[in-house]
Amino acid sequence: MTQTPLSPTDRSTVQRGKKRAVTDRSVLHAILDDGLICHLSTVIGGSPVVLPTGYGRDGDTLYVHGSTGALSLRTASAGIEVCVAVTLVDGIVYARSVFHHSMNYRSAVVHGTAVPVTDPDAKWHALEVITEHLAPGSWEHAREPNTKEMAQTAVLAIDLTEAAVKVRSGPPGDDDADVEAGVAWAGVLPLHQVWGEPVSCELLPEGVEVPPHVSKRGVR
Amino acid sequence: MTQTPLSPTDRSTVQRGKKRAVTDRSVLHAILDDGLICHLSTVIGGSPVVLPTGYGRDGDTLYVHGSTGALSLRTASAGIEVCVAVTLVDGIVYARSVFHHSMNYRSAVVHGTAVPVTDPDAKWHALEVITEHLAPGSWEHAREPNTKEMAQTAVLAIDLTEAAVKVRSGPPGDDDADVEAGVAWAGVLPLHQVWGEPVSCELLPEGVEVPPHVSKRGVR
Repeated sequence: MTQTPLSPTDRSTVQRGKKRAVTDRSVLHAILDDGLICHLSTVIGGSPVVLPTGYGRDGDTLYVHGSTGALSLRTASAGIEVCVAVTLVDGIVYARSVFHHSMNYRSAVVHGTAVPVTDPDAKWHALEVITEHLAPGSWEHAREPNTKEMAQTAVLAIDLTEAAVKVRSGPPGDDDADVEAGVAWAGVLPLHQVWGEPVSCELLPEGVEVPPHVSKRGVR
Repeated sequence: MTQTPLSPTDRSTVQRGKKRAVTDRSVLHAILDDGLICHLSTVIGGSPVVLPTGYGRDGDTLYVHGSTGALSLRTASAGIEVCVAVTLVDGIVYARSVFHHSMNYRSAVVHGTAVPVTDPDAKWHALEVITEHLAPGSWEHAREPNTKEMAQTAVLAIDLTEAAVKVRSGPPGDDDADVEAGVAWAGVLPLHQVWGEPVSCELLPEGVEVPPHVSKRGVR
């Protein structure tokens, strides 16, 4: 399958840290699939606004929905520009110098126009994508949305064509003089996201077990 | 100590999910102290841009620095408006209905003007604050910045006066009918960030042990 390369425009071409820039579209997809939330930014009255929200990806379309976006999302429904970031922090990079301290991370920044999804079938599909990203298995397990709930939910689609992806991994990049002088410890402290033990709702009838799509949810 | 209440303006007053809004300034501070990265948004050429970056907090000032911000940060140096979000995801909320699925989270969104920190002493202090947030103990342990490195680093200060804070915790908020019908499992799957085992740089001399500020870094 031929994939559109990343960074087709000036603004989505990484300007700093070019050695960390990635142009493989599958890396963009993997970052979006591994993240849980995105940060969605818009311009409102000339001012920047950024809000965290859930999302889902289907192919080269990112979906966000209205229960999280508030003011920013309502404005975006008119079809204005958005910028969306998904960032995964994999570790802290301790260098021999303060200057070369860093993080290991995977980052995707998407520039696009948020388009409202209004066709009922398309909206239903988008909500399934968003739900399965947040809670895999829940679309099948939980009660599906009713007409009233569908009407209360706004869904926006953002095309993933224009995106900047950066990845940093590995040890610190210290100056040779600092390495030779052995001025300090250097290395990486990895950071992991792990699921805790599921906490069942107290209103459940006695004896209801945690279903496998929750208890065996994959590692992050 | 008297603290300025949060949300003194319309745009930083939470419009949606008001029951999750928090107006205690100490909660803002705690969220910023618990986070590792922020998402900094600006307006460039009329378009929104959001980028992830490290930061540090001292009192009611948030500091970000230039090694991470690239284009967005250079523009902000001219004194333009920024919006900064720090978001901590504490768990996935599985409801009986798809509609009431949610996340438990703590979120801070700061609206402000990014002001360049140019006074040498103030800039030095800001870099210490940023470094100690990223890697507590490193300012003392690692080689401090030299004149050239200081010149290469831009630091911005953002006042924390205008901020919106939201916190969600606890079980799902399902409809009574769904609770009574027992349509699905419901509860919370907690999400934790944990440190892995430190990985020493291969260029270190043999026998250098991981120092306590790394090996005993506090839980997140």
